[in-house]
Amino acid sequence: MTVLDQIAKEIGADRVLTGPDAAPYGKDWTGGYTSTPLAVVKPANTGEVSAVLKIANATKTPVVPASGRTGLTGATKADGAIMLSVERLNKITEINPEARTATVGAGVILSDLHDAASEHGLIFPLTLGAKGSAMIGGLLSTNAGGINVVRYGSTRGLCLGLEVVLADGRVMNLMSALHKDNSGLDLRNLMIGAEGTLGIITAAVLKLKPKPRAYATAMVAVASLADALSLLHKLQDETGGGVEAFEYMPRSYIDKHRELFPDAAAPFDQSYDVNIMVEVAATLARDAVPNDDGSLPVTALLEDTLGAMLEDGTVLDTVIAQNETQRREMWKRREDAGEVAFFGGVFVNTDVCLPLDKIAEFERRLTPRIKAIDAGASEVIVAHLGDGNIHHTSYISRNDPAVIDALTEAVEDVVQELGGSFSAEHGIGVSKLETMRRRKDPVALEAMRAVKRALDPHNILNPGKVIPGV
Amino acid sequence: MTVLDQIAKEIGADRVLTGPDAAPYGKDWTGGYTSTPLAVVKPANTGEVSAVLKIANATKTPVVPASGRTGLTGATKADGAIMLSVERLNKITEINPEARTATVGAGVILSDLHDAASEHGLIFPLTLGAKGSAMIGGLLSTNAGGINVVRYGSTRGLCLGLEVVLADGRVMNLMSALHKDNSGLDLRNLMIGAEGTLGIITAAVLKLKPKPRAYATAMVAVASLADALSLLHKLQDETGGGVEAFEYMPRSYIDKHRELFPDAAAPFDQSYDVNIMVEVAATLARDAVPNDDGSLPVTALLEDTLGAMLEDGTVLDTVIAQNETQRREMWKRREDAGEVAFFGGVFVNTDVCLPLDKIAEFERRLTPRIKAIDAGASEVIVAHLGDGNIHHTSYISRNDPAVIDALTEAVEDVVQELGGSFSAEHGIGVSKLETMRRRKDPVALEAMRAVKRALDPHNILNPGKVIPGV
Repeated sequence: MTVLDQIAKEIGADRVLTGPDAAPYGKDWTGGYTSTPLAVVKPANTGEVSAVLKIANATKTPVVPASGRTGLTGATKADGAIMLSVERLNKITEINPEARTATVGAGVILSDLHDAASEHGLIFPLTLGAKGSAMIGGLLSTNAGGINVVRYGSTRGLCLGLEVVLADGRVMNLMSALHKDNSGLDLRNLMIGAEGTLGIITAAVLKLKPKPRAYATAMVAVASLADALSLLHKLQDETGGGVEAFEYMPRSYIDKHRELFPDAAAPFDQSYDVNIMVEVAATLARDAVPNDDGSLPVTALLEDTLGAMLEDGTVLDTVIAQNETQRREMWKRREDAGEVAFFGGVFVNTDVCLPLDKIAEFERRLTPRIKAIDAGASEVIVAHLGDGNIHHTSYISRNDPAVIDALTEAVEDVVQELGGSFSAEHGIGVSKLETMRRRKDPVALEAMRAVKRALDPHNILNPGKVIPGV
Repeated sequence: MTVLDQIAKEIGADRVLTGPDAAPYGKDWTGGYTSTPLAVVKPANTGEVSAVLKIANATKTPVVPASGRTGLTGATKADGAIMLSVERLNKITEINPEARTATVGAGVILSDLHDAASEHGLIFPLTLGAKGSAMIGGLLSTNAGGINVVRYGSTRGLCLGLEVVLADGRVMNLMSALHKDNSGLDLRNLMIGAEGTLGIITAAVLKLKPKPRAYATAMVAVASLADALSLLHKLQDETGGGVEAFEYMPRSYIDKHRELFPDAAAPFDQSYDVNIMVEVAATLARDAVPNDDGSLPVTALLEDTLGAMLEDGTVLDTVIAQNETQRREMWKRREDAGEVAFFGGVFVNTDVCLPLDKIAEFERRLTPRIKAIDAGASEVIVAHLGDGNIHHTSYISRNDPAVIDALTEAVEDVVQELGGSFSAEHGIGVSKLETMRRRKDPVALEAMRAVKRALDPHNILNPGKVIPGV
């Protein structure tokens, strides 16, 4: 019996897709990482995931776990492999409003979890542009970041418990809903961010947070990134860490965005070099009580702070969202970043992290090096400035692999010079495998290889991803 | 040349202690885990730690890393092993107030880091009774918790970067100061909480936090644990998560404490079953501005909240600290918990975590089971109620190993029935090795063994601890 026949026997032939049925799964959101899986299998529960992995491990068949396929690093490229889609593990098992936890399957779509939490006056804080397709399994496997990490942390910080199927099909139960649990090695965090190379996450217990009582959102233009950081510190100080988003969109981003979305309004009447979208959330009970003039305290606080900074010249211009429509418009401009980065043409997209005070220097050093490599190149940046996380895209004038490599290395060089990381929130997948080889501490790489071999001795789980030289 | 001669050649003979010089290191804070190390070695830097481990690995000599030896699980018991003390790695390399990070050696004493951060208007939030002796290496290796986890998380959540020497002496550099870094497997969190079984932590980059602008601290008596949780939720709601400590001390704890410290004041004029020490911190700039009557807003807020709850009967009695002396007195009562638990006589001390709403049920189920095992036993509890973390001590009427085992298992049974963890913040060491074997998910145990074998193939690092059956 073939491997696929064995799997079909376990989970049903209609859940084993091949040929044209499987073809759509060979594409991810970027379109840049097409592949031809041997088959796509869609187990309905943890037991079926276990059965599939037992067969794969016994036959040494590669397995690539996939969920929403919205990643940007080619981590679900599955040529010749079984793609195991967790899409049917899509049950929200429990929302516990007292404990503020959600117990979910790996196939639950992020926006569905948002909706379910909202019904209880709670939020699952993680949010990103792909929220309508991205699933919990992929978000955990990549330790996804997103827009409000500055307030709530990455996915890792929002996970209490996990269920993971190991390479040979054994089911590891780490489904704790506890906030403290020091019982041995931290296997939960080892599995989070491993991009499916050590096991397949099938379920999780996630933290929920109280829904903020009010938001105040603004676009702010400042003269420099240094002024932007002053603004961030001032707002954090005034709100006790209430800044939920602090997103940097330079002139280049605003211009590209308007080129791509001609109907989108300009953020300001005139255009500026340094544009920030800031959102502040109020969580105090007393912040929900309107002032005498009907304004909410959090909006008044933002207005007062920005007004004072306008007067002293730190802020050049500002627009505060007056209603939910205006707020959504500000958010949409930022959430369109994926479309802006993958705008067409040949580009090199990066996801790097820098110390907050090194971001201006990153721009200063990088631009001349890019011009030296490709005089016709242009750049766009969008950044989670509050975390030091920059998405830098170079649009190249010609499709030359040598230019692409040189640009990639130029970005890495500057990042390394400034004490940054070559991967902030997207992970490694295949796109940064060579970067890992070049830039990651060699002892850490050897340790990763040792852990990988220990937990997946036949190297069946997402082989050729994340860890070079396995 | 003997192993010790080889080591002496690398780090100096005066840094290799044996016989009576080594004897004090064979004792830990509890006094319950004495051991006779082969020698105590005190390397001065990472290179020397590496040299020691190279020799130990080549000769398959067990190495037990140690720092302040204030742990409660016997994790530094070192019979016949080299005890590697990191006490000389005691340099605070950098406090960076802009980035809010501290770069420290593993031998830095917690209270020294507190002092250094304080000079910059910052705090390192982790605090616990042993802060005057506990060192960063041990705090990270046990993922220590402590009193303000409810606000700031455990040690794991306060660490950005690590330097670790692996079993064979290779130095792994994970010294990132970044808030986002998704570059491969999460080795940092794997090393944190591993109690020295996978590598020896030599340095770390830690997060600092803004020093709260004001504290309000109170002792509160309530009728039940359910009322205590209402109080917690109410205070979290009113302060936007500003509760820094929420410590439960039942009547039994207050009584034992006063027996041990006869000079200590009683918390209230009369005695109550459920006593809570609560501390709220104000981080907003506007909270530092006194009200018209001179009181600080955070104190007024706590007074108002508790006053309203006194009126509606949820709170039975309350004393708010009026000055720092009164605040220190409240804290001392709680920080004496170690002395109270290890009060003398025969006792079984546990460190368990439960869902918040199961703590009363834990007490209800446990007491009759304890009485059935040993009719003469008494109990004392002290709990980080905000985290669900209970320290339960049974004082036994006779020194009978069968009774000790039965009591230990009774606590574990109730914890397991209620979905808790048998180790919340103290870790495993030797004291909970059998509990790990009995209670931890068997697949997780196998995965831990595989990781351990991969990173320490000769099993030289803290052998016989944490992971049973290696």
